[in-house]
Amino acid sequence: MEKSIIGVDVGGTTVKMGIIDNNGIILDKWEIPTNRTNSGESIVTDIWKSLSKRLNQYNISKEAVEGIGVGAPGFIDGETGRVIEAVNIGWKNMPLSDNLQTISGMPVFVANDANAAVMGENWKGAGGNVKNLIALTLGTGVGGGIIVNGSILNGESGMAGEIGHTTVETGGILCNCGRRGCLETIASATGMVNQAKVKMEQHPESLLAARYEVSGSLTAKDIFELANEDDVPCNDIVAYTADVLGLAISNAATLINPSKILIGGGVSGAGEAFIQLIEKAFRQYALARVSDVCDVKLAQLGNDAGVIGAAFLVKHKLRNLKF
Amino acid sequence: MEKSIIGVDVGGTTVKMGIIDNNGIILDKWEIPTNRTNSGESIVTDIWKSLSKRLNQYNISKEAVEGIGVGAPGFIDGETGRVIEAVNIGWKNMPLSDNLQTISGMPVFVANDANAAVMGENWKGAGGNVKNLIALTLGTGVGGGIIVNGSILNGESGMAGEIGHTTVETGGILCNCGRRGCLETIASATGMVNQAKVKMEQHPESLLAARYEVSGSLTAKDIFELANEDDVPCNDIVAYTADVLGLAISNAATLINPSKILIGGGVSGAGEAFIQLIEKAFRQYALARVSDVCDVKLAQLGNDAGVIGAAFLVKHKLRNLKF
Repeated sequence: MEKSIIGVDVGGTTVKMGIIDNNGIILDKWEIPTNRTNSGESIVTDIWKSLSKRLNQYNISKEAVEGIGVGAPGFIDGETGRVIEAVNIGWKNMPLSDNLQTISGMPVFVANDANAAVMGENWKGAGGNVKNLIALTLGTGVGGGIIVNGSILNGESGMAGEIGHTTVETGGILCNCGRRGCLETIASATGMVNQAKVKMEQHPESLLAARYEVSGSLTAKDIFELANEDDVPCNDIVAYTADVLGLAISNAATLINPSKILIGGGVSGAGEAFIQLIEKAFRQYALARVSDVCDVKLAQLGNDAGVIGAAFLVKHKLRNLKF
Repeated sequence: MEKSIIGVDVGGTTVKMGIIDNNGIILDKWEIPTNRTNSGESIVTDIWKSLSKRLNQYNISKEAVEGIGVGAPGFIDGETGRVIEAVNIGWKNMPLSDNLQTISGMPVFVANDANAAVMGENWKGAGGNVKNLIALTLGTGVGGGIIVNGSILNGESGMAGEIGHTTVETGGILCNCGRRGCLETIASATGMVNQAKVKMEQHPESLLAARYEVSGSLTAKDIFELANEDDVPCNDIVAYTADVLGLAISNAATLINPSKILIGGGVSGAGEAFIQLIEKAFRQYALARVSDVCDVKLAQLGNDAGVIGAAFLVKHKLRNLKF
């Protein structure tokens, strides 16, 4: 019988886990809260307690598990499985792979959570196992991951694929990273709400201003909803955001020459219409020889991408499996 | 005895050739004119005639040659060694590798000339055999090549690394590629002269305008020379060009996370001062975690990069050698 693989996706609020078969099918998935007290010192133990209980429940012995893959936030040394720094959990220079391996007795491999999600999408989601792929996650920030020649691109210090921090407006809005005009300052949920605040002042008569008046706050979802109701400022925000994203992925594709660009995350919940706007801008900005071979697609797996990709990481590491 | 390797660099005007030892040292190098009549049909025969004569001269038998590497312009299928299209030579769907292999009886491998030059620079030039590198060539156009995980990045259709066609000014100047505002429209020799033409009108009192008045034409070299003489418009052009280049390489490095960025080509002949301006802009725009691990260097090999890199291609293909 084929062995099972464990996928773990460590987030700031919950740790998602899954038992996954060799073809990437989730046999069971569940989550536990992320205990961040004392710099997250109990997290590894929490994971193993929950995991061993679940494996017992299914009568899956250690020998029937190929290994544990973990996606973790922050800066990861993929070779040693060490978390250099994960600010929103509190880990610093934490030997995640070694610790979980010691407690579980299974092989453990660690990757950055964004990269794990990209592997998951390429394995079982919208990627379709292509060799060259760019993925964006539009959420509170803008995450990114790149696959080239069938493997995740890590770069010299694990920073490759940070498309959210490419500069799209020199001298633009201040970004969380300390620099100005990053893609993230426009194309994230936060960036869209920032755009809305400016528009609201300019258009006090708009549905946008009215919505804010009533609720006292705004989300990217509000902006997409009001754009659907033909509110002019919201239409402008959606159009501008799509144009900037189209330009950013065009420039990335001109370097990487991928066959797929995947867009996921909360903001992409606006759906196909938004993706089509981005794709239109991409095709307008990119060299034909680059865009002709490249599809732009909505990511499919949502929250499952992380655990599925973490499971793929085990196959990749143990069997040198590439896309 | 170690075998020799032949490196060939096919250009629109000349074909450069070299006999190279296993450590990348050029034993001899020479060039022949590129005969473009009848869509360049005699070029392969010309190469072999010249090459076999030279090998005879050195008493190097076919058996003492490991193979022939060729860098050729245009769109190359690296797997089959076929030139899909090389506009300025006239080749279209030309089985370069097969033809040269048939006539020479030696293994032949073909790569894009820009990529061959990047391999040469990384092997024996300013690269220093690093695993992740971005190279720019500032000439009539802006060429580029990328090495990741120790290998040239080709992408899905051999278009990866075209940094000259990343958009830096939406709605900017029309580029040869048919799109607007590509890096090439600003940072190439042509782009700098185009900037100078605008500046000249604005500053009829400048040294720049006087130089044009006398010579009736302008080159990038004029601009750098007059900037050294503190001509304000020329200083502005150099500063703006360096700033745009710094931004473009910052965005590329944010995706690739390389340990070296190399800048070569005619425009880089302006030397270290220009490279330092570019580097300053790069460090200002890039994430610290990206720029801290990355050096910006002037390319070293000049015209030899192509033949040396073509020789490396043979080692890469025959022995799966990576950086």
